[in-house]
Amino acid sequence: MKLSEIASRLGCELSGDGNVEIERVCGIDSAGAGDLTFVANPRYTSRLRTTRASAVILDSRAPALPIPTLRTSNPYLAFARAIELFYRAPAPPPGIHPTAVISSDARVGPDASVGPYCVVGPECVLGAGVVLHPHVVLYPDVTLGDAVVLHAHVVVREHCRIGNRVVVQNGAVVGGDGFGFAPVEDGTYYKIVQSGRVVLEDDVEIGANTTVDRAAVGDTVIRRGAKLDNLVQVGHGSEVGADTVIAAQAGLAGSTNLGKGVKVGGQAGFAGHLTVGDGAVFIAQSATSHDVEAGRVIGGSPGFDGALWLRAATAFPRLPDLLRRVRQLEREVERLKGSKKEPGDAK
Amino acid sequence: MKLSEIASRLGCELSGDGNVEIERVCGIDSAGAGDLTFVANPRYTSRLRTTRASAVILDSRAPALPIPTLRTSNPYLAFARAIELFYRAPAPPPGIHPTAVISSDARVGPDASVGPYCVVGPECVLGAGVVLHPHVVLYPDVTLGDAVVLHAHVVVREHCRIGNRVVVQNGAVVGGDGFGFAPVEDGTYYKIVQSGRVVLEDDVEIGANTTVDRAAVGDTVIRRGAKLDNLVQVGHGSEVGADTVIAAQAGLAGSTNLGKGVKVGGQAGFAGHLTVGDGAVFIAQSATSHDVEAGRVIGGSPGFDGALWLRAATAFPRLPDLLRRVRQLEREVERLKGSKKEPGDAK
Amino acid sequence: MKLSEIASRLGCELSGDGNVEIERVCGIDSAGAGDLTFVANPRYTSRLRTTRASAVILDSRAPALPIPTLRTSNPYLAFARAIELFYRAPAPPPGIHPTAVISSDARVGPDASVGPYCVVGPECVLGAGVVLHPHVVLYPDVTLGDAVVLHAHVVVREHCRIGNRVVVQNGAVVGGDGFGFAPVEDGTYYKIVQSGRVVLEDDVEIGANTTVDRAAVGDTVIRRGAKLDNLVQVGHGSEVGADTVIAAQAGLAGSTNLGKGVKVGGQAGFAGHLTVGDGAVFIAQSATSHDVEAGRVIGGSPGFDGALWLRAATAFPRLPDLLRRVRQLEREVERLKGSKKEPGDAK
Repeated sequence: MKLSEIASRLGCELSGDGNVEIERVCGIDSAGAGDLTFVANPRYTSRLRTTRASAVILDSRAPALPIPTLRTSNPYLAFARAIELFYRAPAPPPGIHPTAVISSDARVGPDASVGPYCVVGPECVLGAGVVLHPHVVLYPDVTLGDAVVLHAHVVVREHCRIGNRVVVQNGAVVGGDGFGFAPVEDGTYYKIVQSGRVVLEDDVEIGANTTVDRAAVGDTVIRRGAKLDNLVQVGHGSEVGADTVIAAQAGLAGSTNLGKGVKVGGQAGFAGHLTVGDGAVFIAQSATSHDVEAGRVIGGSPGFDGALWLRAATAFPRLPDLLRRVRQLEREVERLKGSKKEPGDAK
Repeated sequence: MKLSEIASRLGCELSGDGNVEIERVCGIDSAGAGDLTFVANPRYTSRLRTTRASAVILDSRAPALPIPTLRTSNPYLAFARAIELFYRAPAPPPGIHPTAVISSDARVGPDASVGPYCVVGPECVLGAGVVLHPHVVLYPDVTLGDAVVLHAHVVVREHCRIGNRVVVQNGAVVGGDGFGFAPVEDGTYYKIVQSGRVVLEDDVEIGANTTVDRAAVGDTVIRRGAKLDNLVQVGHGSEVGADTVIAAQAGLAGSTNLGKGVKVGGQAGFAGHLTVGDGAVFIAQSATSHDVEAGRVIGGSPGFDGALWLRAATAFPRLPDLLRRVRQLEREVERLKGSKKEPGDAK
Repeated sequence: MKLSEIASRLGCELSGDGNVEIERVCGIDSAGAGDLTFVANPRYTSRLRTTRASAVILDSRAPALPIPTLRTSNPYLAFARAIELFYRAPAPPPGIHPTAVISSDARVGPDASVGPYCVVGPECVLGAGVVLHPHVVLYPDVTLGDAVVLHAHVVVREHCRIGNRVVVQNGAVVGGDGFGFAPVEDGTYYKIVQSGRVVLEDDVEIGANTTVDRAAVGDTVIRRGAKLDNLVQVGHGSEVGADTVIAAQAGLAGSTNLGKGVKVGGQAGFAGHLTVGDGAVFIAQSATSHDVEAGRVIGGSPGFDGALWLRAATAFPRLPDLLRRVRQLEREVERLKGSKKEPGDAK
């Protein structure tokens, strides 16, 4: 595809030779002749001096370059759309595979694709254009909106509700039993039936092998557009706000309420029964056990103000040296006190 | 159902109007007319002043309330049992689905339910009333006790033994190969065949996508009544004591021995080859690499006494300030020493 | 089997009675008559004084023992091979199960075993002696080398390449979509099509429920002989070097480059876009966000030099006491300063 055509399709400003033929989209370090690459982070602009790429997508305000460029206010988004010009993910054809076991009480929308060995329980409803990859299991009374994609080995448990255009990666479990047990006097635990449901609103993405639990009563909710990475745990009765992003292996204990546009780093943890305001940011491996106000940045375990945490963490390696210095100070102060004492001073 | 009947079924003491009609059980914040709610934690009693619930389960010793109450010594347990009065989880009917592949050498007990696409290997034994949800795979020589429930996509590997009334949530892997490799002189690793087995005793619950590994030799054992949350890792040759509770994403390296009634917080880690006494408590994200005595509380990474950890963690944000103060002290002590020196002093 | 025969098969030096009959291989604590046990770690040699094992494998340089011994320079490796003399893991027979759904465009090598309910997509290639346990799903255009073993419920996504003798434990997801989203001006995220692939080189092992993601462009690569434990996350575009070992629940964000022979402890995290040199070691729960030189040991979150971290972590519990001592010093220095001042001094 000619670079000029790509510029036109992506709505980018072209400078340089628009007749360059582009064959694929590529990362900056591996790009060669025929490749279109991109720079979203100005830190990496210097690498463009040595790239062998045929063209580059970059920010409108970036300095001029000797190779052809496509300029835009959002280079990362243009890169995402450029990939789509050259690559189409394999998609199973519409239709119900003969091996799928679909309850006679279920309803399947038009143009849905139900793959081999899927199991769809009674009272399930599948919207238009839903794709169930092989081995998806829907327990009874699950509703999927339009254009939902559930990858192979996904399970959705009873009563759960999934909105439109939701994507769930392989092996994720939506609606497993919440971890609810009532302690009994003899030291054992009594399992609490989990009668609640999980609700995934429109445009949510759930990562591979991530688990989102149902609660004893009430809903666990992931709001519109939230994105969860792999191996994330969402405890029963939690709520994740719209456009909130949770990196891999982070965990929310029960009844954690995250606001909109929150960013959670990898392996971070929330103790549950707490509320986080919109736009808060949690550094990887941080731990939060209290409410957090909107817009705050939190680091550390237990977590506190991110900027202060960074200073404390930087000081931490000096702790052994600090101990030594304080001992030294104590000796010197003792000596100074001693030298002040006159004969006859009471101790 | 009338409140008086609920009181009678749960063995609670009723005060107020027993003729109130209850339609469901509900959390305190979302409860409305027709709802029965509960307060187990005295911290939340104040919320009862504004609840619109029709009735509430609470502690025998709680103060009087203007709405009908059911009183009991264990409100959380009564709540659990109240849910069961109004909700029954969907359960597959007994019988073997025609698509299940069951080895002719396997034995299936009475009233078992084996769902679509289950695979049961040779020499497996399934007790009475076992429920295998769709897509459960049992490798050869697996024994399941009575009333075991394995949810969709559970795998139980060769030789494993599962007791009565065990529940395993979706995607959990019971008996995957332990992470055992012998280092070879050339820097590569030689895989050690894992010939051991996993034993889950009666009344154990295993969370979604949790992994419990088999060992090279000997058993990995989860004792009676222990409850493991989602995404937990139990390394080869470990033992988890009776009624021990492990929160999500915690991990036990190989040969970790936890006693009875231990409580492990989320994302906590154990380095393996260690023993923990009964009733010990591990704060979320703590890390333990040594033996821990019974009843101890451990926090931090690496972990130590929980109360001391809490004080140290509280002091941690003050570390940058502490460094500054020590520098200041050093300057002042230097000045004090200087002012003491007489001309002619040897340094 | 006679001990003398075991000695001969393992290439160990026998001392003591070679006619002892050995029935199984066993851990040192549970060994009894007829058992062969081993000691690889000299720390445990003392336990041999009380063992009831009939024979023991140990280091060539270990002191003499009253029981028969097999001596070798690598006792752990000899132990691994000894297990194989007594135990053979159940393996499904070659052949394609009638319920497997295999695309007519796929090629299956000689002696392959494809279990019940496997799904093999178009253009897949399976090498000789491949074993697919039940419910394995291969998306289109997956290539598996010879003697690959994929356990039940493994998924390999489109275009991925798997070398020879690779073992993937149950529930692992090879090639799930990388967590790539372009932020849009309105606060939402635009999903970036992940067109890359995952490459697992020869002799790699992937643990249960571990996830290795595909990237938007380019490869995610696990090099020859690397071993990943359970519930590990490998982000898109990362590279794991040959013979590198990653313990359970560790996580690599996108574009993490680990060298050869690196050792990563459990629950450790890497922030991505960084490079780690050969042979580096990461202590459990450490967090790394910068490049690390070859051979370094890193501890802590955020991570730094492991030896210094150990001293800092040891000092950490003394932080509250340190605060108290600095306050005390400040008071004393204030007093000393006061006692120096003469009447009339300007402050």
